[in-house]
Amino acid sequence: MSEGVRLTDEQRLDWLCLIRSDNVGPRTFRALVNHCGGARAALAALPDLARRGGATRSARVCSRQDAERELKAAKALGAPLVALGEPDYPQRLAMIDDAPPLLAVRGKTAALALPMVAIVGARNASAAGVRFAERLARNLGQAGFAIASGLARGIDAAAHRASLASGTIAVLAGGHDHIYPPEHADLAEAITAQGALVSEMPMGWEPRARDFPRRNRLISGLAAGIVVVEAAKRSGSLITSRFALEQGREVFAVPGSPLDPRAEGTNSLLKQGATLVTEADDVITVLRPILGQPIELSAEEPEAPFTPDAEPRGNERARIIDLLGPTPVSIDDLVRLSGSSPAIVRMVLLELELAGRLERHGGALVSLR
Amino acid sequence: MSEGVRLTDEQRLDWLCLIRSDNVGPRTFRALVNHCGGARAALAALPDLARRGGATRSARVCSRQDAERELKAAKALGAPLVALGEPDYPQRLAMIDDAPPLLAVRGKTAALALPMVAIVGARNASAAGVRFAERLARNLGQAGFAIASGLARGIDAAAHRASLASGTIAVLAGGHDHIYPPEHADLAEAITAQGALVSEMPMGWEPRARDFPRRNRLISGLAAGIVVVEAAKRSGSLITSRFALEQGREVFAVPGSPLDPRAEGTNSLLKQGATLVTEADDVITVLRPILGQPIELSAEEPEAPFTPDAEPRGNERARIIDLLGPTPVSIDDLVRLSGSSPAIVRMVLLELELAGRLERHGGALVSLR
Repeated sequence: MSEGVRLTDEQRLDWLCLIRSDNVGPRTFRALVNHCGGARAALAALPDLARRGGATRSARVCSRQDAERELKAAKALGAPLVALGEPDYPQRLAMIDDAPPLLAVRGKTAALALPMVAIVGARNASAAGVRFAERLARNLGQAGFAIASGLARGIDAAAHRASLASGTIAVLAGGHDHIYPPEHADLAEAITAQGALVSEMPMGWEPRARDFPRRNRLISGLAAGIVVVEAAKRSGSLITSRFALEQGREVFAVPGSPLDPRAEGTNSLLKQGATLVTEADDVITVLRPILGQPIELSAEEPEAPFTPDAEPRGNERARIIDLLGPTPVSIDDLVRLSGSSPAIVRMVLLELELAGRLERHGGALVSLR
Repeated sequence: MSEGVRLTDEQRLDWLCLIRSDNVGPRTFRALVNHCGGARAALAALPDLARRGGATRSARVCSRQDAERELKAAKALGAPLVALGEPDYPQRLAMIDDAPPLLAVRGKTAALALPMVAIVGARNASAAGVRFAERLARNLGQAGFAIASGLARGIDAAAHRASLASGTIAVLAGGHDHIYPPEHADLAEAITAQGALVSEMPMGWEPRARDFPRRNRLISGLAAGIVVVEAAKRSGSLITSRFALEQGREVFAVPGSPLDPRAEGTNSLLKQGATLVTEADDVITVLRPILGQPIELSAEEPEAPFTPDAEPRGNERARIIDLLGPTPVSIDDLVRLSGSSPAIVRMVLLELELAGRLERHGGALVSLR
């Protein structure tokens, strides 16, 4: 995964098989590759690891045929898979701790190299909100930023439309052959001219409700900062802003009347310390100095590499599992309370995850499913 | 001027004569009383001091007849003059460095003893702005705060109306017999039931444009904090918020859409660090702890008492005047550059002021007129 190197076709196929296998998310992918020394070895080790984690039924491992079929379909649609660490992979996104190992990119990969600002907001946006999002996207585009958003109705679409000429990135919650909402198919087409559509999901994947929050981490992860234009309480845009904070991104919010429910979310972000935005310069002033710096690692500490021979002994595995329950606990606490080494604890958690028994939360918290 | 003591009728008459004399403002009043040892002695010294300051024509000293007439008229209208240091004088206002020596109060002086929040904003307020001001004033009233404002159209009137029952204070820019705007005569009447109208201006004084900014320092000075609800750029409400900052008061602002010109002033205050308000609790949370503390002196350092025999010698006076010009300079710089003692510099400035040749600015800056 060193910078600038491209995967061979065989390696890309291995990566795809691994990330499309049951219970393997971006974090598990990374842990497996580190532990086993590569994707192919990880694929071979999967069934045994899952069994040791107590899998009740065998977890499906993606077949080479299925992976080959997906690669072919992606190529046919003009959405090749870019791997983490390859030159076309978006630089900032690569630094989040759950960066997708493979990203299907349709359109101009050059747009992904521009500094990005995410603009997100309400689907049922007000006319003023839409107008403001357009103005902001246009002015940020003129200042050299690409605009990232989620292709949704309202604010998202307004931000994309106003930055078609300067570069705009739409992050999809489903596969490239399932544009959502369907009426934005034309907009998606137009985006590919100077910008790009990106997705971590397989071709043929129809987005479900829970795919959208997951997708939102990519919108914030791509960008140096995110601007929330209009947002009600408990809205998707606020989820994106939470991801942004976890990822160490700048959070901006547009103020609105306290009597407007669409401003409740943004005013609340401002109370929590988001930077107030009334014009593009408010964003540019904060981001310019950041862009000059080397891209920082995400706030979370990188994990130490797996010790290849980290094997739980005696009742170590049972002791660690006993400490887990439905309430999220921190991995640090597990290490402290179990008396096992961090490498052993991570090994046991990986096994549990592959067995479909573990849930990972933000801030290095885990719980049993 | 010790706390809790009341002036005799004679003393009140002396105070009134002094503050109503030409070129005597609240700061000069204080300096004169300190220098001469009392208002009566100051009145006697006035002509000589003004002559030494280079008065070209004799400055008018208010006659005892005129002062008696004003006292009588104020009493007849039920607006007696409360002196700085008397128990009924508003506590916080007493701490600003240009507190009026006499304040004509009509209505319930008890309202002046409540903790106060100022609510100010645009005269051409939006319906939403008016509704928000009403809600805020009502909720702050229920929490035990009196509301101070300027009796203007729009936000001011809305704030007063919604706090009639809990206590509201209107600060006038003219005399008590010149309610402005005239259509708020009924509102002014209603305010006296549980609240008060206050003015530092003489009876019969019709407010001119420049009296409003001057009046605004009293609105912020009365209150522990000020909330700006809607305000365009360069509006009177922003002047009040500047006074509030100089006086060490908390500044709050209500956010609005960047596309609404009436939110330009408030959004700009928020960018400068004002506390964002969407509900009364945002104000109460900040002010509650402050109310528990003893009322603090204003940020400006109190002047050392005048040395009674501080008389400029030789060419000291000329040297100090030479250092002055139309550009405001700090009194500290004058002391440093003139080589004279602070007491001498203040003496010369007092003389110049009484001669009508000196202008005082915020932050202890002075210039020649």
